[in-house]
Amino acid sequence: MPARLLAACLAALLVVVATPLWAGQAPLSSWQDGSSRKAIEAFVAKVSTEGSPAYVPPAERIAVFDNDGTLWAEQPMYFQLIFAVDRVKAMAPEHPEWKAQEPFASVLKGDIGKALAGGTSAILELVGATHGNITTDEFDAAATAWLETARHPRTGLKYNEMVYLPMLELLDYLRANDFATYIVSGGGIDFMRPWTEEVYGIPPEQVVGSSVKTTYEVRDGVPTLVRAPEIDFIDDKEGKPVGIHSHIGRRPIMAVGNSDGDFQMLEWVTAREGASLGVIIHHTDAEREWAYDRDSHIGRLDRGLDEGPDRGWVIVDMKNEWRQVFPTGGK
Amino acid sequence: MPARLLAACLAALLVVVATPLWAGQAPLSSWQDGSSRKAIEAFVAKVSTEGSPAYVPPAERIAVFDNDGTLWAEQPMYFQLIFAVDRVKAMAPEHPEWKAQEPFASVLKGDIGKALAGGTSAILELVGATHGNITTDEFDAAATAWLETARHPRTGLKYNEMVYLPMLELLDYLRANDFATYIVSGGGIDFMRPWTEEVYGIPPEQVVGSSVKTTYEVRDGVPTLVRAPEIDFIDDKEGKPVGIHSHIGRRPIMAVGNSDGDFQMLEWVTAREGASLGVIIHHTDAEREWAYDRDSHIGRLDRGLDEGPDRGWVIVDMKNEWRQVFPTGGK
Repeated sequence: MPARLLAACLAALLVVVATPLWAGQAPLSSWQDGSSRKAIEAFVAKVSTEGSPAYVPPAERIAVFDNDGTLWAEQPMYFQLIFAVDRVKAMAPEHPEWKAQEPFASVLKGDIGKALAGGTSAILELVGATHGNITTDEFDAAATAWLETARHPRTGLKYNEMVYLPMLELLDYLRANDFATYIVSGGGIDFMRPWTEEVYGIPPEQVVGSSVKTTYEVRDGVPTLVRAPEIDFIDDKEGKPVGIHSHIGRRPIMAVGNSDGDFQMLEWVTAREGASLGVIIHHTDAEREWAYDRDSHIGRLDRGLDEGPDRGWVIVDMKNEWRQVFPTGGK
Repeated sequence: MPARLLAACLAALLVVVATPLWAGQAPLSSWQDGSSRKAIEAFVAKVSTEGSPAYVPPAERIAVFDNDGTLWAEQPMYFQLIFAVDRVKAMAPEHPEWKAQEPFASVLKGDIGKALAGGTSAILELVGATHGNITTDEFDAAATAWLETARHPRTGLKYNEMVYLPMLELLDYLRANDFATYIVSGGGIDFMRPWTEEVYGIPPEQVVGSSVKTTYEVRDGVPTLVRAPEIDFIDDKEGKPVGIHSHIGRRPIMAVGNSDGDFQMLEWVTAREGASLGVIIHHTDAEREWAYDRDSHIGRLDRGLDEGPDRGWVIVDMKNEWRQVFPTGGK
């Protein structure tokens, strides 16, 4: 047998031998074999089977995922907001004026509710102060350091351990079927990018999120990107299809979210010509996670519950359909 | 031999047998074996050889390319500007007021120079009128139709045939070495995306460009993205590193441009820790293409010629280093 063919056969043999771990685990093993899992599996089968009328070529098999409340938890409040609060506290020594200035004064006293009562302008002030006037490298380092040291007040876990095991399995399962998996989140694109590849297998170029205005300059001879204390784009609600169009330029075929902030994303994706799937993760598990929907300030889910089923969207009941919630530890 | 192993060996055999066309063509065959080609090949070898001190894992092997003047021609003016002019003429019947209103009046009289004498505001008006107040699907169709029917005034070729064969080969060569190839252009992201996958092998999600403000709405029950007559982002000069950060979120390791609009992109990329390569395509060929640099209104190259060599950037002499310019036809 010619050397090249022998080498190719040996390479194939190595691939076959080296895949036992993935091949041994059943995909989606933390999902009960219920209606949601069946619907997801049926969808993946029909778009990936050649000859199927619903077949979608791999290059178009794009699945988009919200992050807060979909891939990782968001209670008692969005984790990036906790990050902002912690940054205010860390930066306070350099800002004595904050003791008498809202929303900072309330944040420093630990009264987040009162701080946020200032509404959108309060949030923008907080974001501006804690996310702006910093280089992209410095922000990357600040976010990374915080995720390394901060602990969730209820579980004691690191925040990037507060991810949902069934969703990690769903990401793996989709990629094993030649889907490209993207995040489309209202959270900061630069807050997510330092860690989503390691935690979710989603690389920076496949993360879509909200952003601040950023400019390029050469500082002391070093080319630098500087974040301004000014929002550039909010990737939420009607913004999500816009963010998808900007970053991806194709209509995805599957969208997964958990709140009404994801409604337009699911509406946009499931309006495509051809097969598509919309999925809502419904927080029904007060024991192992948090139960919330129509009345929650964080991650409100109301219109999605009303309209989703008639639109053919899959509503995942976390309590009854997930065998396990977090990979380790938990509530 | 167990069935799975036999199947794997047969699959490997088929792969080996089925690659003759690519394997047979020497890569970069339209490049003279000169200093630019050698520099590119040496760079690719050092970043892709395991154990090399300059080794870069495939996930980080990102190469970014300008479009106008780098991948396709840009004379006598940017092709997208010709598109805008043609759209003004096509839309004129619905806009009788344009006969007396600049810059439209001059465009309709065929005096583009006078139209553009109005400067930035004239260009913004042109772009707004011809690229806004239209859905993304309609714009996609308009760009596609124009590229199908329009012909270059000098060569008679379609505009997407005015691409550079040596650059198509460079894209193929890089991808064969596990690079991801992106476009980072001052041109419109939505003007490029309908055709760059077919022509360059660069899919929509790997195209970065300038954009207009876009919004999501449901029109007559149909989820729709609508382009506003308002610029959102200009992906040129200092904007290119910002566009790269926004869309890719990683620092590329190689950047290719042709004008001073690409200077900051090359400066940003070649400032990375570790191996990097900056390349400038210098238009030196009055016979087969166009010769222009420091004095050109279109694609001015001045600072890049002054500083590029000392920065270690490769300056490609089109006249002497390319055996062929266009894939077919030509000047």
